[in-house]
This record gives sequence, structure tokens and C-alpha cells, in this order.
Amino acid sequence: MQLLNDEAYMRLALQMAQSALGQTGINPVVGCVLVKEGRIVGMGAHLKRGQGHAEVLALQMAGEEAKGSTAYVTLEPCSHYGKTPPCSDRLVEAGVTRVVVAGTDPNPQVAGSGIAKLRAHGVDVTVGLLEMEASAMNEAFNKYIVTRMPFVTLKTASTLDGRIASKTGDSKWITSEASRAYVHTLRHRHQGIMVGVDTVIADDPQLSARGDVPAVQPVRIVADSQLRIPLGARVLQEQDRQPTILLASAQAPAERRAALEARGIAVLTCGDGPQVDLTLAMRQLGEREIGSILLEGGGRLNGAMLERRLIDKLVLMFAPKIIGGGHLAPGSFNFAGFEKMADAIALDRVEVEQFGPDISITGYPIYT
Amino acid sequence: MQLLNDEAYMRLALQMAQSALGQTGINPVVGCVLVKEGRIVGMGAHLKRGQGHAEVLALQMAGEEAKGSTAYVTLEPCSHYGKTPPCSDRLVEAGVTRVVVAGTDPNPQVAGSGIAKLRAHGVDVTVGLLEMEASAMNEAFNKYIVTRMPFVTLKTASTLDGRIASKTGDSKWITSEASRAYVHTLRHRHQGIMVGVDTVIADDPQLSARGDVPAVQPVRIVADSQLRIPLGARVLQEQDRQPTILLASAQAPAERRAALEARGIAVLTCGDGPQVDLTLAMRQLGEREIGSILLEGGGRLNGAMLERRLIDKLVLMFAPKIIGGGHLAPGSFNFAGFEKMADAIALDRVEVEQFGPDISITGYPIYT
Repeated sequence: MQLLNDEAYMRLALQMAQSALGQTGINPVVGCVLVKEGRIVGMGAHLKRGQGHAEVLALQMAGEEAKGSTAYVTLEPCSHYGKTPPCSDRLVEAGVTRVVVAGTDPNPQVAGSGIAKLRAHGVDVTVGLLEMEASAMNEAFNKYIVTRMPFVTLKTASTLDGRIASKTGDSKWITSEASRAYVHTLRHRHQGIMVGVDTVIADDPQLSARGDVPAVQPVRIVADSQLRIPLGARVLQEQDRQPTILLASAQAPAERRAALEARGIAVLTCGDGPQVDLTLAMRQLGEREIGSILLEGGGRLNGAMLERRLIDKLVLMFAPKIIGGGHLAPGSFNFAGFEKMADAIALDRVEVEQFGPDISITGYPIYT
Repeated sequence: MQLLNDEAYMRLALQMAQSALGQTGINPVVGCVLVKEGRIVGMGAHLKRGQGHAEVLALQMAGEEAKGSTAYVTLEPCSHYGKTPPCSDRLVEAGVTRVVVAGTDPNPQVAGSGIAKLRAHGVDVTVGLLEMEASAMNEAFNKYIVTRMPFVTLKTASTLDGRIASKTGDSKWITSEASRAYVHTLRHRHQGIMVGVDTVIADDPQLSARGDVPAVQPVRIVADSQLRIPLGARVLQEQDRQPTILLASAQAPAERRAALEARGIAVLTCGDGPQVDLTLAMRQLGEREIGSILLEGGGRLNGAMLERRLIDKLVLMFAPKIIGGGHLAPGSFNFAGFEKMADAIALDRVEVEQFGPDISITGYPIYT
């Protein structure tokens, strides 16, 4: 049983924050719980960029009861005027006397200033309760706010012998219904979903989040250096509902680009080589405020992204089967690779989970 | 807490049985616990082929106290004169009044006769308590006793992209110390350990069980159709301690065969084709009373064994790293494979376990 203590309230705030993952854009998810005289008097979570912060929503719910209360906040309250007034001021004005914070703001330019402001006004501040948990759920925000590059999660789905299709190209279906529901949840939680044009040509995917309930639809991103994408491709439809961005080279034919742009498709020029400059592409996507991308590429795109150290997290789904086919059957990764086993890219913080019959292995690459 | 009941005593008997896995040869592992008036009065496990059965050892420990006791046995007591007198007779003679059996003997020619004999002598017999657990630990015996073919466990160790070496052939080390300890335990638990001659030529392995404590050493088996194995190979040394069997074709040079046999190496002729007839090889190994084999082959041998449906269980170890190298880096499986994803060989009863940083995925292939 969860005992009545600081941790219990912070866990509630974390749960509220986590549930909003995928709907705050480049903003972090934040939860806040206000407690006074043994009762919860307010709860809030940041739900959408440009809308209320967690603390403000919780203060609104608490009304007069905020006075003398303790606030449990998963992220340091902001201290600057952004799209909303600073939350630290609001907490002071409302008469909150104690603030328990899980983690400080990862942005080095603001880290600690919200806390300092609270303390300057005599508020009792505790920092660091469940900090790891709070930081982990904002891993994309933590990268983006510092680097302005999107956090990229690579997701693969292969057989146990690492094949994403048979030697004839057949790939329906590798993983189970339960795994596909997991993938749609991952799509909901990322701002962008990215593939290579060869995947579009081969499979004509929709690249949308389709689960049991409606989801936030990620922007669709296709690496397509020469703009070979068919105009009838499903990823180019319904632009009002789910926009598409193409990553092209300056070498791509100008008339193709014009035809695509005329249909409302954004085309980013990522270098002038035969291939898309993927680092430049990520930088440009970051400038467009895409802070997280789910990469669902084929072996070449996955390998190229990994080689350029652009992948922050791997989610490798394995279906419990063996298909064979040697090098005729495509794999999840196709890149030059390393000469020594000791030089392989190791994963950190590995976690294993089962979805129906399938196995998901998650980890964070260590680039040395 | 394990409550005091039939299940608790059977679990103890199962644990004793399981701990003898690997030291009973083609015999099953069996445990027996004798209980009288609320006290354990005897315990036994079959420890070595040709030596006492579990029931007999437990009866010896109990002495006079066996009279009026209840026996918990993990496998139906035998009813025939083999290397020892039938246990069902011994239980009756000792005055055991109740026998609780986990599973019946899988051998269709004897199944049920031990139980029938006990009942004919007025013993109260209960059958089926923890039957699944009891049967699972004797999975090799269960196959061998019916088919006279060895139960083959395929073990692989690869990166997450399915590579068993880098593109230059470097494979030291894929998995961690914790995983290697697990592999040595698997070797202890199998009567034979099998590789292809290319592995011997490339890595010159010892193929012995080397853990923190001494182990039973499996017979070493090398598939070597043309008898290309170097006479100095480590698997050919110490034949008195750990014998080696070579699987060859009738095409293999006679003088090579003579030289090997002169050194005490057994050479089995498995067909007259360019490759070893693996089905025939398994049949011959069965005739030599090898009831379980741990296959640690390269991609081609693994694939060939799988294609011929000779693999009963897979233990796939994954190290949490990505090495790349495309088709230049060898994989765990190399065979023609299937055209349709739906035709891939699916695994049943999948289990996932972590050993240090590594992940082990275990399952049983479903051949359709």
C-alpha cells in the first residue's frame, strides 16, 4: 500500500504528468498536486503548449484553499515570462508555503532560478523527490531544450533472426496485435514519425496512430533525397489533419519540389549531396519545433541514423519466430558496422517487456 | 510462505530432481520425499544412471519409518526390472500406504503400469500434482524415450542485430560473464555439445563446461563431412576426460578417418553425400545413448538443423549492442528460409530472462 507521505503525492503528480505525454509538443509534461491539512485541494497537469501550466491549473482548482498549502510539482516551477506568467510568482501570490520539486529545469539558463525565487519569498522548498522518474519521462524535452535537436526513438520489428521481411519482401505481419497497439502508443507520444522513401514506395503506409481510442497524430517525415515519392502515396493525403515533411537534397528535381509544395507538402533541403544530410535534417526539424521523432525506417535509414549518432533510444520489437533467407531477407540495420565486437554500440539501461507473444527490448545507445 | 500440504512436499521432490539435471545421462531426473505423521522421514533423488532410484534412496533413509508413510514422487515409480528392481514393488514391500505422483512415464509401453501395480496392492495413489513442472524438467528424456533421438537445444549468442561476429570475424566477446556462466550450466545439463568443423577451425574452442564449480563434461560432437578437422584441435585433446565424436560423410578420406580413429576419436558415417545427413547423425547419436545435445553451431549448421526439424528448443542470447556490417557480418541463422512471413517457424512457450546485461529468449519451435 502506498503510505500517506510526500512520495505518494509526488507519484500522483508524476502519473498525471505522464498521462499527458504526446500532447504537449516540445513542452515538458508536468504535474502538480496541492495538499492542505491532510486533503488534496488541487490537481493540475500541463496538457497543451500555450495553455495553463500544471501549477496554475492546480491553483485554480484549489481557489482560496491554496493559501497555506504544500505544492508537489514534478518539474521546477518556471520563473520567466513565456507564453504564461511565471509559476513561481503564482505560487507565492496564492500563499503556498511549501513546495516539493522532483527535478530542476534541464535548461542550464533557467535551472534553479524558479526555486531561488520561491525561497527568496520565504517558501520552504524541497528538491529531488523521485527526480529520476520525473526526468525520465521528459527525456525528449531534456534533449531538445539543450540542443534544439529532436530526440529520436528508433523502433524496429523483426523476427528473432533480425529480419524485417522474408527474402521475397513479405512482411505481413511480423509482430502481433498487442505489439501494434504498443507502436501506436509510441506514435502518439512522438511529435514526428519518420521513414525512408523506399518504405513509402514498398508499403504505402499511412503513418498514423490508430489505436482503440483517438490519438494525437504525429507529423509524417519522409527522407527522400531525390523526391521520388509517388504523389498518390497515402502519407501525402489529409495534410490538414496530419502534415507531411519531406527531407530532400538540393539535387532533387525542381519541378517535383514545386508539385509537392503546391499540394501543401513541406520540403526541407538537407544538403546538396546524393543522400539527405541527416544531421542537418534533424537540426531543421528542431527549428520547426519538432522535439521528438519515432524512426521506423528500413535497415539503411536506421543504420545511417545510428552511424551519425542521431538515435537517442532504441525500441527493438522481436516476434518469436525464425524466417531465414540469409542476406536476401532484409534486416533492421544495414550499415558498414564495426570491425571489432568491442567497438559495437552498446545499449545502456536495457529493459525488456513482453507484448502478447512479442518481446520488446529498450535501451539507450552509448556512443564512444 | 509455502504452506504445509501435498504441494510443498512435491515441490521439494521436484527441486531435488531438478538439481540432478545433467548427471543422469539418458535417464530421467526423479525426486522422492517420504512423509510420516507430519515429519519428512526420507528423501532421495536419482543421481546417476545404474545407481539407485529416487524411491529406493528415500526408503533407505527412512528405514523402518517408511512403514505407513506417504511417498511424493516426481515420476511414476517403475514397474519393470531394469538396472535395478522395480520401485513400485519396493514401495509396497516397505509398507508405504499412499503415493502422490506428479507425472506418468512418457514411455507408452510402461505408462500407468507402475501406478496400477501400486493400486493392486491397496496403495492409495494420487496422480497429476505439479505434472507440468515435472514433465518440463524431463523434456529431453520425454523425447528420447519415445523416439530414441536426442533432444536438441540450439543456443546462440548474438548482438541485437543478430550478428555472431563482426564483418572481420571478430567475436570476442559478444555476451557477458553472466551469460557465459549460463552457457556452461547448459553444457553441464546436456550429454553432448555440437558444433560444425568451421567453428573448430575458426575459434579452436574447448567445448567444455567451465564454471565456478566442476561440471559434468558433455561429449563433444563435430559435424565434419570431409574430416577437415586439424589433428591439433583442442576438441580432439583429452579424450579420456571428454570423448569426441565426429560426424562425417562416406566421402571423407579413408586415411583421415584412420588417423583420427587411431587417436581414439569416434567417427560416425552419416550418409554418403557432400554434407552430413543430420537426421541420420541424430539417429546414430541416439543409438549411442546420447539423449540431449546442446547445439552451438554457426549460421549454416543452425539453419540446416532447423530446416530438418531436428531442433527441439531454442535459447537465443542477445547482448545489448548493435554491430552492423550487413551480410558481411555472420548471423545466427543462415538457411534458405521462407517466402512468406506467415510461414516463419514460430516459437511456443516463450520465456525471457536477463543475465547481467544480456537477454535470453527461450522457446520451442512449432513445425507445421
